[in-house]
Parts: sequence; structure tokens; C-alpha cells
Amino acid sequence: MSQPPVIVLVRPQLGQNIGKAARAMLNFGLTEMRLVAPRDGWPNPEAGPAASGADFVLEQAQVFETVADAIADCAHVYATTVRKRGITKPVVTPVEAAHEIHAAQGRSAILFGPERSGLETDDVAVARSILTVPINPEFGSLNLAQAVILVAYEWSKGVGLSQPPAVDLDPPASQFELDGMIEQCDAMLETAGYFFPADKAPATKRMLRTLLTKPGWSNQEVRTMRGILTILGKPKSR
Amino acid sequence: MSQPPVIVLVRPQLGQNIGKAARAMLNFGLTEMRLVAPRDGWPNPEAGPAASGADFVLEQAQVFETVADAIADCAHVYATTVRKRGITKPVVTPVEAAHEIHAAQGRSAILFGPERSGLETDDVAVARSILTVPINPEFGSLNLAQAVILVAYEWSKGVGLSQPPAVDLDPPASQFELDGMIEQCDAMLETAGYFFPADKAPATKRMLRTLLTKPGWSNQEVRTMRGILTILGKPKSR
Repeated sequence: MSQPPVIVLVRPQLGQNIGKAARAMLNFGLTEMRLVAPRDGWPNPEAGPAASGADFVLEQAQVFETVADAIADCAHVYATTVRKRGITKPVVTPVEAAHEIHAAQGRSAILFGPERSGLETDDVAVARSILTVPINPEFGSLNLAQAVILVAYEWSKGVGLSQPPAVDLDPPASQFELDGMIEQCDAMLETAGYFFPADKAPATKRMLRTLLTKPGWSNQEVRTMRGILTILGKPKSR
Repeated sequence: MSQPPVIVLVRPQLGQNIGKAARAMLNFGLTEMRLVAPRDGWPNPEAGPAASGADFVLEQAQVFETVADAIADCAHVYATTVRKRGITKPVVTPVEAAHEIHAAQGRSAILFGPERSGLETDDVAVARSILTVPINPEFGSLNLAQAVILVAYEWSKGVGLSQPPAVDLDPPASQFELDGMIEQCDAMLETAGYFFPADKAPATKRMLRTLLTKPGWSNQEVRTMRGILTILGKPKSR
């Protein structure tokens, strides 16, 4: 399996946002954060509380002076930004980036810019590709942690640890059980004079069968339904 | 096209989080928010600033007393929660929910619970399906707006408005232009005595061709490279 990508926060401004980014990362199994020239220095006391328990991501975070230093060991670098004029690099979505990163040899890094201004042209220049989240063209307002979480989430789809939980639904009842219920119902309705006129009865029964098959009831549920029918079929004692 | 899903915040606690959820929604084109019994009443002055411009989502938000009232017009209801014991409903990921919602007839609604505690069993009971974000099993810590943004993001993949931006990369240079550059390079290296011993020259030249072909340079870039080679080939004037 390929290595998880490094998340590089370039000149992040608020410690709180660094903490939120760490939390976003760890939710989807990313643990390696690198910081380039954080504005308020490092460590930053505001980061920890915002990380909501993802402290070890912050504790392990490495600090670098330049983007080049931060990604020196990475073979594939993505710059997260909206597309800018005059930049002629491939633009990929989080989905495409995730596929590339999983298929890649060597480490990948994803750059995220400062909260207010985003990555500068010189930061983008070091990247191979631009990563852009397709967004509402009339309202593009992703904050740092949201951009990080979307990228981490897409990456996590390719790893085993975050597969959807196993579903322990009861299996649907067998056809035998289902037919038993349908027969009981038909018989009760027959008694009640429901199938009238007689020449419409086959179509009505088919419709009822469809109706009762559609829920995909489990055998417990079918038993419950039969109990209900039985009760309803008994002469009223009240 | 199917209708966008309604986002239902059930007993949300902080106005700020309602605002953040609105922002998350609008980023991915969702605009219909419904609130069930918001703890601090509605409107809430803390919601607007947190919405970062998604005010009209808040202004249009409808308030209901119960979950049942909020979803009365919806045909497909998802309860966002981690899977709970004893609940036997289908569990879907955001990807699966998005596909179902796009394919569905009638409106869909997605329920999100209070920040601290999440949806209660009675809230989950009204839903057809449980929506669970596959997450790091050792650190599941999604906040309300993050859960909303992941669901909205997946939904947005199915609509035209948020396709990835068009890429206007310069096409790679023609083979003729590329060969011109390679020949120039070969000739210069020949002059410099690079191809030694002579019997290794063909292999070395092949390696060079591979090296110079791999970048997929545009014709402007090839012209730049040739300019560089030309400069390097001139007798030093300094």
C-alpha cells in the first residue's frame, strides 16, 4: 500500500485552525502534518483544544522555514487552490488526487495555504498538480479544516480502515415464510368478501403479493405480521 | 433531475454551528435547511456571522417542533449517526446516499442530531436508512458542520454545477519540435565529448531522449529549453 500523504499547512495563521486541521486529518486516518512558517510560532497553545483529541498529530508536526524544505522528501506535490490565471499545471479533484496518491510510488504531499489568502503563486509553482475542490461557483467558501477534511476523506476511501460498517440486518424471510403470510392474508380477505367481483380477484391478489413482497421483511417481521393477521381474524371478544 | 435533499438539524444547540452548517451546505449547492426545536430559539444572532455569507440559507430555514413535522413531505429519510445496537435498518455511506438521492423520486431529507449527543433512538426510528460516514475507528470526531459538508459534497458530485474546472494546459510540443531540441542537445554533448566510450553512445542517447520526452513540454517550453541550450553552448563571454 502507498504511504499516506503529508498535509502541509503553508504559513497558517491561527493556532485554532491548525488544531482543527489535525482533527480533520485524524478522522480519516492521516497523521503527518508539516507546518511552514506558522505565523504565531510553534507550538501554539490554541491548537491543542481545537484538535479535540488529535493531539498526537500536533505533537508530531514538523516545522519548516520554506515550502521547499517541507516537501524535500516528497515525490508528488499537490497545491490546493482555486485555479489561477496563467498557471498551466494539471488540475485534479480530491477524487483524482486520492487515486493518484494511492497508485503513486514515493510520498505525496498536499499543500494548503494561509486562511485568508491561500497559496501564493510561488508556492503553487513547486507543485506538480493543482488540487481544486469542485464547489458552488456562486458560493465558494471552504475554510482550511474543511478543505483538509474533504481531501482526507477522499483519501480514506482507498484504505481498509475506514470501510463502511458491516450491516447486520436480518435477512429477508424465505419465500416459504412469505407465501405462508400471503396465503393467510388472502384467505382472510376471501372470507371477508374482499375479492369482488370474482374476475378481478387474480389481479387483486397479484397486487397484494407485490405489496407484501416489497418490504423484504425478515422472518421475525413476517411472524409478527402473521400474528397481527391472526388477531384481526379472530371474532371480536369485546 | 431529482430534488436536492433537505438538511434537517434536530435540536441543534449552538447558533454558530447552525451558521457553519449553512455555509457547508451552500458550498455544495444545498439551500434548504430545516430546524427541529433549536435549543436557543430561532432566529439566533450567532448563526449569521458563522455562515460567512450563506445568510439566505438561514433566512429561508423553516422551524418545526418535531422531526415528524419537519419531514412530513419527504419520501426518503436518512438519519446521520454511528450505527447503534439493535437498530436494523440499512446503513449507507455518503456515496451510497448520494446515489440513492439522485435516483429517488420525491424529496429526500437527511437528519443530523444535536452536537453533543447526536440523534436519539426515536429520531432514528423515523428514518428509512442510517447514514454513517466511514471514519477512523480509533478517532471518530466529526462535528456537525463537517458531517454536513461531507454529505453535501458527495451529493454535489451528481450535479452539473460543481464539475471540476476546465483545464487549459498547453498541449505538448510536436514530435518535430521535440526532435529539434533533442538533436540540438545531442550535438552539443557530442562537441563536449560526453558520448564516451563511442560504443555506449546509442544507449546514452536513448536514455537522453527518454529523459527529455517524459516532461511532455509544450512548444513554448521546448523553445525555452532550446534557448537555454543555445546560451550554454556559446563561448563564455565573461
